[in-house]
Amino acid sequence: MQSVIHLVSGDETEQRTALNIARNLLEDESDQIDDVAVVAQAGGIHALTSDGDYAEDVRSLMDDGVPFRGCSNTLAAFDIEESELVDGVETVPEGAVEVTRLQGEGWAYLRP
Amino acid sequence: MQSVIHLVSGDETEQRTALNIARNLLEDESDQIDDVAVVAQAGGIHALTSDGDYAEDVRSLMDDGVPFRGCSNTLAAFDIEESELVDGVETVPEGAVEVTRLQGEGWAYLRP
Amino acid sequence: MQSVIHLVSGDETEQRTALNIARNLLEDESDQIDDVAVVAQAGGIHALTSDGDYAEDVRSLMDDGVPFRGCSNTLAAFDIEESELVDGVETVPEGAVEVTRLQGEGWAYLRP
Repeated sequence: MQSVIHLVSGDETEQRTALNIARNLLEDESDQIDDVAVVAQAGGIHALTSDGDYAEDVRSLMDDGVPFRGCSNTLAAFDIEESELVDGVETVPEGAVEVTRLQGEGWAYLRP
Repeated sequence: MQSVIHLVSGDETEQRTALNIARNLLEDESDQIDDVAVVAQAGGIHALTSDGDYAEDVRSLMDDGVPFRGCSNTLAAFDIEESELVDGVETVPEGAVEVTRLQGEGWAYLRP
Repeated sequence: MQSVIHLVSGDETEQRTALNIARNLLEDESDQIDDVAVVAQAGGIHALTSDGDYAEDVRSLMDDGVPFRGCSNTLAAFDIEESELVDGVETVPEGAVEVTRLQGEGWAYLRP
């Protein structure tokens, strides 16, 4: 099974929960989860900035195989450069399209 | 692909994000999105009132083919008349049933 | 059709909405909903404590056939004993795995 986490909230508690859930899915002992991905947009993009509080967690999750994808529409709207994101974060033109695409391929959706 | 946006939050930032995402899905240049619908209930219903801050955005999205469906259970609970919603907003008996139905037909779920 | 409600927020309004939606799904007159389940984790777990404001609603929904499943990872992280939850609430090792599993079986996802 595959799970995509929609990191869309600007609320720091919800961002923290999203990253915790990504970690818990990876470490699930029942081994039911094959892949985890995180798609960030709107206020959620702030969790992926290299000078943010969660940069180390994002790096650690990427090291363990979780791709992070930031929404280019959000970057433009918030005037954030791609270079301000943690190294290794990918971008997609629109986060909601990416989340839709993954659900269409059978990924489960989680919105912490 | 088809995407249903669950407009369920009373938070104005989340409502703003939901409408922005609807617009971005429509304008997606990859042309992967065939249909977008918005189902509003609970605090999210306030975004659909004709005297609300988002009335013009709702009208514009409807003009561009996005149906908006408000939850009748919410209208009753909040003592809002259907006539207070933006013209053209449809109602469904229960928003969560509508969202479940659409997912059953293969629509992706988005909860900004 | 089957609907799983992800009770993941610590916000009391969102918790209230989640329980209202569970009730409305049960009482839906269109009879399209065969099963409703609630999976609680992160801040949402507080809605399931026996001394919380929603204990009576949780009991009533369980009496009417809605299973409630609390996340053991959350209980450990928040130092909450399983005995502090409303009697009858089940636990699962990780809430997000359970929600993924149900979506894989065709359940619709709702995140109020």
